[in-house]
Amino acid sequence: MDYSPALMTDMYEYTMLDATLRDGTANRKCVFEIFTRHLPEGRRYGVVAGTGRILDELEKFHLSDEDLKFLSDRHIVSKETVRWLENFRFTGNIRGYREGECFFPNSPILQVEGTFGECTLLETLLLSILNYDSAVASAASRMTSAANGRPCFDMGGRRTNEWAAVAAARAAVIGGFQGTANLLAAQLYDLKAIGTAAHCFTLLHDSERDAFESQVAALGRDTTLLVDTYNIEEAVRTAVEVAGPDLGGVRIDSGDLASLAQRVRNQLDALGATGTKITVTNDLDEYALASLQTAPVDSYGVGTKLVTGSGAPTCAMVYKLAEREGDDGRMVPVAKKSKDKATVPGRKLAYRSFDGAGDGTVALADGEHVVAGSEEKLAAFPATAPDNWRDLLVEFVRHGENDSSWQGHDAIVNAQAHHAASLAELPVTAQSLMKGDPAIPTDITVL
Amino acid sequence: MDYSPALMTDMYEYTMLDATLRDGTANRKCVFEIFTRHLPEGRRYGVVAGTGRILDELEKFHLSDEDLKFLSDRHIVSKETVRWLENFRFTGNIRGYREGECFFPNSPILQVEGTFGECTLLETLLLSILNYDSAVASAASRMTSAANGRPCFDMGGRRTNEWAAVAAARAAVIGGFQGTANLLAAQLYDLKAIGTAAHCFTLLHDSERDAFESQVAALGRDTTLLVDTYNIEEAVRTAVEVAGPDLGGVRIDSGDLASLAQRVRNQLDALGATGTKITVTNDLDEYALASLQTAPVDSYGVGTKLVTGSGAPTCAMVYKLAEREGDDGRMVPVAKKSKDKATVPGRKLAYRSFDGAGDGTVALADGEHVVAGSEEKLAAFPATAPDNWRDLLVEFVRHGENDSSWQGHDAIVNAQAHHAASLAELPVTAQSLMKGDPAIPTDITVL
Repeated sequence: MDYSPALMTDMYEYTMLDATLRDGTANRKCVFEIFTRHLPEGRRYGVVAGTGRILDELEKFHLSDEDLKFLSDRHIVSKETVRWLENFRFTGNIRGYREGECFFPNSPILQVEGTFGECTLLETLLLSILNYDSAVASAASRMTSAANGRPCFDMGGRRTNEWAAVAAARAAVIGGFQGTANLLAAQLYDLKAIGTAAHCFTLLHDSERDAFESQVAALGRDTTLLVDTYNIEEAVRTAVEVAGPDLGGVRIDSGDLASLAQRVRNQLDALGATGTKITVTNDLDEYALASLQTAPVDSYGVGTKLVTGSGAPTCAMVYKLAEREGDDGRMVPVAKKSKDKATVPGRKLAYRSFDGAGDGTVALADGEHVVAGSEEKLAAFPATAPDNWRDLLVEFVRHGENDSSWQGHDAIVNAQAHHAASLAELPVTAQSLMKGDPAIPTDITVL
Repeated sequence: MDYSPALMTDMYEYTMLDATLRDGTANRKCVFEIFTRHLPEGRRYGVVAGTGRILDELEKFHLSDEDLKFLSDRHIVSKETVRWLENFRFTGNIRGYREGECFFPNSPILQVEGTFGECTLLETLLLSILNYDSAVASAASRMTSAANGRPCFDMGGRRTNEWAAVAAARAAVIGGFQGTANLLAAQLYDLKAIGTAAHCFTLLHDSERDAFESQVAALGRDTTLLVDTYNIEEAVRTAVEVAGPDLGGVRIDSGDLASLAQRVRNQLDALGATGTKITVTNDLDEYALASLQTAPVDSYGVGTKLVTGSGAPTCAMVYKLAEREGDDGRMVPVAKKSKDKATVPGRKLAYRSFDGAGDGTVALADGEHVVAGSEEKLAAFPATAPDNWRDLLVEFVRHGENDSSWQGHDAIVNAQAHHAASLAELPVTAQSLMKGDPAIPTDITVL
């Protein structure tokens, strides 16, 4: 289907555009910021993901004739606004946290700078992508830590929207996963794809032996055979008889995984299949993975809990106007005062500070610092920032041109590496699965 | 982007296809069934949604040259399988529960009949769509009941994947919602679209009065003005001054909604704006809606909790082989015996029974009846089914041809009406928000 991300947008963005084109304020320069007021309950950190997808979608963010006709026929915008939209493309700037970066409450994850008209149209798409992708990457990161070096693979596509599944596979890799079962994700982002057979394959055949022989004939001895359709012990025996002791792996998808893995390991070793790997896949989350650390498991397939953010399916990120041009051409910091939803006026800088630098110990992050103020004060601030503060904002889009180094397969690989480094720099409590406060505190300074 | 739903598929579906084409079992006739083993904790019923989208996607389920090259280059399937896939289209039959139908544990929500090869390729797509869409429709239904006649609108697109947002808008309407903020959903499914302005619109202007005047000039007096950017009381006064007592509505998006709605109602009435409606929109779920029943609110905008299934972001539906052809051409019921995941062999019929029929009282559902057995026994069963049992299975696809009456806008309207009727037939405990057992019990009879 030919679709336009430009209509993946809440109607009020277009009605606001229409009203502001009439009164002239659509051309006021603005800075919008994306942040979250709080992490999901008890979480120590979040993981940014989705920015590369945002850049992909921005390249397609324009309205087709059909889209314009829809906006006109539904009387959502005026004829003048339709004309303004005909050649729409975003011409502003976007900065923010890298994919893979850890974030905390009030971290300015994305900053969008441009006219009100162009910035308001992006809100829904940017939030949809960041809220979902970051939820999955955050869950994937916790699972990867709990797996403690054993590879995790995404098998969750069946439990979420079909396009969310594709985004989830990408976000999971940023969070530390090694690959996915989802072929469209593997195709679009050049990810490792995994998978061999389901229970229906065994049931389709006249016997489990027939099924295993068929699978080994097609996929080789190195394949992974699913051993819990009927009786696991018989299946393991049959598997090694069919494939020989060089069988690549077996998968267990039900029952008490720790004790079953131990029994299967013992049986495989007794049969001489000492190199055969064990994969387990039954409704895993980070807590289950942590409890399996001493079980003889070689890799994990994670489904439902990954693609639903392991209890936190969205990040509660919002897109708020931080400053806008006034009649005199100067930027005016602005903020709403709504109860429990007040915002801090002005564009933000963001830094993470580190202790121990220079004294021979490993430097660990000890604070997130958000700095707001007038454009003049912000421009002068970086030269005066403490030495142990690291600037967290990078540039993604300049005058409407993507920096393509943040897109594509390599960007995902880099984001995964960056996330591992970013997490390693946090105090070790960040990796605790116990509920608690964010791993480092955030302070907001208004210059 | 031009995409293929055929690759929105777990890799093992293709490796199973490849192995079974080699050994000949790919051509065995099969019946797969989609069901869930349990409702989300404490839920009384689920609501089927997504089937219409499945039919839309089936029409596009074929592999492009690029897709075939990907499968070949990655060595996922053999050259022979690539040839088999070149002209792939599903030629089998699909039956199941209507969209809007209430479902329970073990309800056979979808039955897919065809060769193993064609049925296995559909698994991921069918489950992705039904699991997500039904999760949203189920949440929407509970919210609609709790809203007790006041209209609910979907405003959740920003809190879920950008395509999930479109599906959620459609599913929400099936569950009883009246419209959506999402324009692509409104365009694709001809849904009512809603939305006027966000806080940034007020902040962009030099004063709240300027913003309200601009909005009324663009959208008319009948618009809804957002009144909680600064001070609600002042905003309401300004709103009525600007638009007059015929102002369409005001929206409150923060604070204690019940008490604020009462104060705003009193203020509006005192200003003569007795017809001005009040919409509230702050992190609502079914519990919040129930608590607002006595507050003077006219409509609700629901976001995060709708699109994330209000605590149950997926339905845990699975796709299992129920029977398959044997060498002799006869159908063989099959089932896996995995611990806690055993299945019931054989294709299923499904009925809902009603009490009170014929005695002048309203007939209420009192049981879900799943009947399994050989093809011969199932064929003979309907003639002997009790009079108060209603057949729940309808036909969606016959020999690969969609019944298009289940697709498009009218199908959504019909599904909404069907859901309202289906829910009204359940015991009233179904609409309780207290955690408990499914509203009616399900029994499984093997003939």
